[in-house]
Amino acid sequence: MTIERVVFLAGGIGILDSGVGGLTVVKEVFRQLPLEEVIYIGDSARCPYGSRPTHEIHTFTLQMIDFLLQFEPKAIVIACNTATAVVLEEVKRKISIPVIGVIEPGARAAIRETKSNRIGVIGTLGTIRSRMYEKVLRKTHPDLSITSLACPGLVPLVEDGHRKMEDAFQIVQRELEPLKNISLDTLILGCTHYPIIVDLIQKAVGDDVVLISSAEETASELSSILALNHQLVSEHREPSHRFFTTGSPDAFRKIAEDWLKRKIDVTQVTLDHPISERLSS
Amino acid sequence: MTIERVVFLAGGIGILDSGVGGLTVVKEVFRQLPLEEVIYIGDSARCPYGSRPTHEIHTFTLQMIDFLLQFEPKAIVIACNTATAVVLEEVKRKISIPVIGVIEPGARAAIRETKSNRIGVIGTLGTIRSRMYEKVLRKTHPDLSITSLACPGLVPLVEDGHRKMEDAFQIVQRELEPLKNISLDTLILGCTHYPIIVDLIQKAVGDDVVLISSAEETASELSSILALNHQLVSEHREPSHRFFTTGSPDAFRKIAEDWLKRKIDVTQVTLDHPISERLSS
Repeated sequence: MTIERVVFLAGGIGILDSGVGGLTVVKEVFRQLPLEEVIYIGDSARCPYGSRPTHEIHTFTLQMIDFLLQFEPKAIVIACNTATAVVLEEVKRKISIPVIGVIEPGARAAIRETKSNRIGVIGTLGTIRSRMYEKVLRKTHPDLSITSLACPGLVPLVEDGHRKMEDAFQIVQRELEPLKNISLDTLILGCTHYPIIVDLIQKAVGDDVVLISSAEETASELSSILALNHQLVSEHREPSHRFFTTGSPDAFRKIAEDWLKRKIDVTQVTLDHPISERLSS
Repeated sequence: MTIERVVFLAGGIGILDSGVGGLTVVKEVFRQLPLEEVIYIGDSARCPYGSRPTHEIHTFTLQMIDFLLQFEPKAIVIACNTATAVVLEEVKRKISIPVIGVIEPGARAAIRETKSNRIGVIGTLGTIRSRMYEKVLRKTHPDLSITSLACPGLVPLVEDGHRKMEDAFQIVQRELEPLKNISLDTLILGCTHYPIIVDLIQKAVGDDVVLISSAEETASELSSILALNHQLVSEHREPSHRFFTTGSPDAFRKIAEDWLKRKIDVTQVTLDHPISERLSS
């Protein structure tokens, strides 16, 4: 790691993502848990993860977990569906603080919202191939009708900051075309990048389909777990947050400030270190 | 207790309420966790709790907890806002299985759903006087605008099976009158009886207000806690449920079968026993 001076903010919420998608979780944490401090790391330099081989996703994600553990967070959110599918269970076993992925909260919310038991999932290639949503959904509901669709074209739309381009809606529409004649009442946005283009997705699937944002649900589950563990911040002071990216800090800041509607500081780091002992054992 | 033969179903979900209101949580558990077994006890003979003195609510609720513990449940849901306000923290400290109340899940869902930060809460006299919703909501959101209203007339409407009477809507409208000129975007149904008359409440407050059912949210939180503890049922078999009431089994069955849309067995019990050692210490 090239970072030289680290200010230790013990007790914050560590949030990681392959890039800027996890900012949708940050926005929800800011909204639902406004007293909590966030330490965010986005691996934009190596994004997207969705089409990478599993061993790379595994290594890169553990490098981010390692990075966050320096700050002694009280909980870590793997705010990336692809990374959740690959490492969540392993990391949960290896470290003692709560580790929350984005797949289970989204799946649970879909079960809460569906009336027809016909659920759709959209995500990256990696997430859809992992079949993790099906696995989690069928664990409690073996008879659900589930339609999964990989939409590899959507993350670049967000990550490159092109969501306001004129043809953005055409791209979304084309990606979602296979869902056109399938009757769903609930669609899980199985990628934390997607809430940033939620208006385009809603327009493409129609107003009758309830969209589930894993970001919103994950922040809600984080809140519930911190409350259960009596770990919610109780002092009413302004928290200070830290943002790190492996990519261009300017590009990251531009998307982040636009999405979060506030000024932030961003520090660039490199994450090419070997995995530490606590995670490699 | 007068119950003579108890079939021990270790590992079910124990659910208790002052009467039939907790059936709204049961319905959501059936829907969101269809593989789990439910053991339900409703204290209809001594319902409503909302206007009783605290020491009575305390004793009666601990008697129900005691009753449920015989069945060795893996979790207990206090599916009554009044009882949650009085005993949740105490029971959590005293027994080792997860104990879930209905107040925190509802409060968290309201925070998730509100856009304007103007939240309303309706409940029994006991719940509203306890100010528990305000306490939980302000813990993370000190600046929320919260309007609380006690609606003592609503529980009898449900408990007496009168919700289909012609003047039911007039009663609901009169009870909610004080909210008329207050602009809210989210209203917490702070009593598990209320989802049974949700259509009347929605009609009275208008379609623009999002109603939060603590029943739905509590089942969702139960699901999340069981998943976190690796305690979800994994065999795909038909669960068998047990229902107990201190009141008339026929009256209970009538309301329950109408609400749950399935046949159930109901056993009458009396709960006048002294509190057992594990709870009285």
